[in-house]
Amino acid sequence: MLQAPPAAPGMREEEIDTPALLIDLDSFEANLDRMQALLAPTGARLRAHAKTHKSPVIARLQMRRGAVGQCVQKIAEAEALAWGGVPDILVSNEVIGRGKLARLAALAGLSEIALCTDDPSQIAVLEDVASAARTRLRVLVEIDVGAGRCGVAPGPDAVALARRIAASPQLRFAGLQAYHGGAQHIRKENERKSAIESAITLTRRTVEQLRQQGLDCPIVGGGGTGSFAFEAGSGVFTEIQAGSYCFMDADYAQNLDESGLPVSTFRQSLFVLATVMSRPRPDGAVIDAGHKAVAVDSGLPLVWQQPEIRYVGASDEHGNLTIGAAATPPELGQKLRLVPGHCDPTVDRYDWYVGVRNGRVECLWPISARGGFS
Amino acid sequence: MLQAPPAAPGMREEEIDTPALLIDLDSFEANLDRMQALLAPTGARLRAHAKTHKSPVIARLQMRRGAVGQCVQKIAEAEALAWGGVPDILVSNEVIGRGKLARLAALAGLSEIALCTDDPSQIAVLEDVASAARTRLRVLVEIDVGAGRCGVAPGPDAVALARRIAASPQLRFAGLQAYHGGAQHIRKENERKSAIESAITLTRRTVEQLRQQGLDCPIVGGGGTGSFAFEAGSGVFTEIQAGSYCFMDADYAQNLDESGLPVSTFRQSLFVLATVMSRPRPDGAVIDAGHKAVAVDSGLPLVWQQPEIRYVGASDEHGNLTIGAAATPPELGQKLRLVPGHCDPTVDRYDWYVGVRNGRVECLWPISARGGFS
Repeated sequence: MLQAPPAAPGMREEEIDTPALLIDLDSFEANLDRMQALLAPTGARLRAHAKTHKSPVIARLQMRRGAVGQCVQKIAEAEALAWGGVPDILVSNEVIGRGKLARLAALAGLSEIALCTDDPSQIAVLEDVASAARTRLRVLVEIDVGAGRCGVAPGPDAVALARRIAASPQLRFAGLQAYHGGAQHIRKENERKSAIESAITLTRRTVEQLRQQGLDCPIVGGGGTGSFAFEAGSGVFTEIQAGSYCFMDADYAQNLDESGLPVSTFRQSLFVLATVMSRPRPDGAVIDAGHKAVAVDSGLPLVWQQPEIRYVGASDEHGNLTIGAAATPPELGQKLRLVPGHCDPTVDRYDWYVGVRNGRVECLWPISARGGFS
Repeated sequence: MLQAPPAAPGMREEEIDTPALLIDLDSFEANLDRMQALLAPTGARLRAHAKTHKSPVIARLQMRRGAVGQCVQKIAEAEALAWGGVPDILVSNEVIGRGKLARLAALAGLSEIALCTDDPSQIAVLEDVASAARTRLRVLVEIDVGAGRCGVAPGPDAVALARRIAASPQLRFAGLQAYHGGAQHIRKENERKSAIESAITLTRRTVEQLRQQGLDCPIVGGGGTGSFAFEAGSGVFTEIQAGSYCFMDADYAQNLDESGLPVSTFRQSLFVLATVMSRPRPDGAVIDAGHKAVAVDSGLPLVWQQPEIRYVGASDEHGNLTIGAAATPPELGQKLRLVPGHCDPTVDRYDWYVGVRNGRVECLWPISARGGFS
């Protein structure tokens, strides 16, 4: 069952029912603008990752600023975007199973669709599905540039797979998927840069080897919020797939810049609003947001702009706070903003975004692909 | 948007779209029966916790076997159960905010409703809301018996709060909430027992002090899957609030019995079904279930009955497996059952249970209170 929205436009922030997922619209819009400004001189285009936001509304706001389309990880996300009017969608992931592939091919009448593969055994089923849907599927080869997850080896293995795709009348070779997920959260800038330089080198060589075989790469995609400046400036990557930049989180806030200070390119715009539900101890409080309401896979949330109040323990529906001596203790019923440890899985728990500006609710946006795992 | 069901009755398990949340119906029913059999001689009744299953269907199956009602943590859960026909619901938690309380009071025409408090400042708003809804709310006093979360101190503080409730014409004092969450996962039986014996002693004393003031406790509630045998046998607790017992998980499977062996009272009945989506390395595989699809707050999932295949890393939508030398490597497209590290938050990510028996899908049940945080 879809949950009822926790707010209505015009309400004050303190009136929002909790837990609720808030977007600070000023910071959010500043992030969208900033990404476009940073990419403009590089020539790389933004294909923002919708696995973060799961919303055709946010996709549209990104595309109005110049994004060429969206990435997704799952067919259910592709469906939500295609049905929501997004005209160009790349599944930056392998898709296994005829049922899922048929669902994807069925979207080809609505939007430009592409997907990835890393296994020659999949070519036949991709061809069958494309043929049955009377479409020609765009297929990228995913290469493993250091993440150690999916992907064929860069170089000859990738070229061999690309040739198989290019030779098929039902498929079109669309380029390379070269995302280094593991590098996004390396804290020190020089180490992060070094990991990405290695990924860029492997990608560049593969692009050159493909060209030697007469195969162009319309898309060379990769780059996340932690690394996109390197990929965008490489001259090799044509599309940047950052997702978290629009929201940010406590984990990304720990990445450091050249001078060893926290990277401040983007602002925190996503919050979980919670209510103090018990004050059992003078130095402690309990709030109504536990790990069902805020993801803890990348660390506990922070209490926004209250460094003396610390979120120290998450149970299913409770968050335990400690209150430092210098803090003003929050009252029973008081609402607090939390900065999620990890934005993507936090978003995926909610049905609604509550957009706030100047202390008032301005909009409600459905998180259309929430729970879309398939 | 509600996600489409990943299966239909009659399908073979291998045909279920993934990731999907499976209930092995034989094991699940055996768990329900076993709990009732264990509680029968103690006189304590089961009020199973719906924060685990979030489903009026499962509530009904528990009540058909003798459960007196259900516990919930959230108003949205209470609504889903009341709308789904559950006649007796205890919010085993504090409820802060007039809007939430009014929603709860509005259910009093459908079901018997009770809730908890741990703060005298809440009495006035509880009275207002009950009065406005022309109902008399049943209120329990939550005492902190060692969990260090919500609750007043056992003894005089609890008695004082109970007297305030009992004196109100709009409220009825309904007893004590005395759940020791922190003890449920203490691995060694003697240590777990010792923690619960302390909780039982604190609860017994408070019940006696209330009785000295002429206050009876129709409900003395507590006990979880890790500890319920102790509370049930105490002669003090009247209601057992276990939730996870119907499903179990990898975390509870680490609790030990008297002889130091894993507790085997209940069977694993809940699984996440996943598909192998990439075979990039001979000793590794990637499946389509990451931490969006299976909760990792209490540890990574296990691969069911495949000890040589280990789930070693969760990203948003991918699970990285290592394949031991003695294992038969899973093929691309093969489906694997995962045992979630923690059942409650895993359930909360899905819209549908897929009930399977003898390798076939038997039923689909909606997870009606999924995402019900408010």
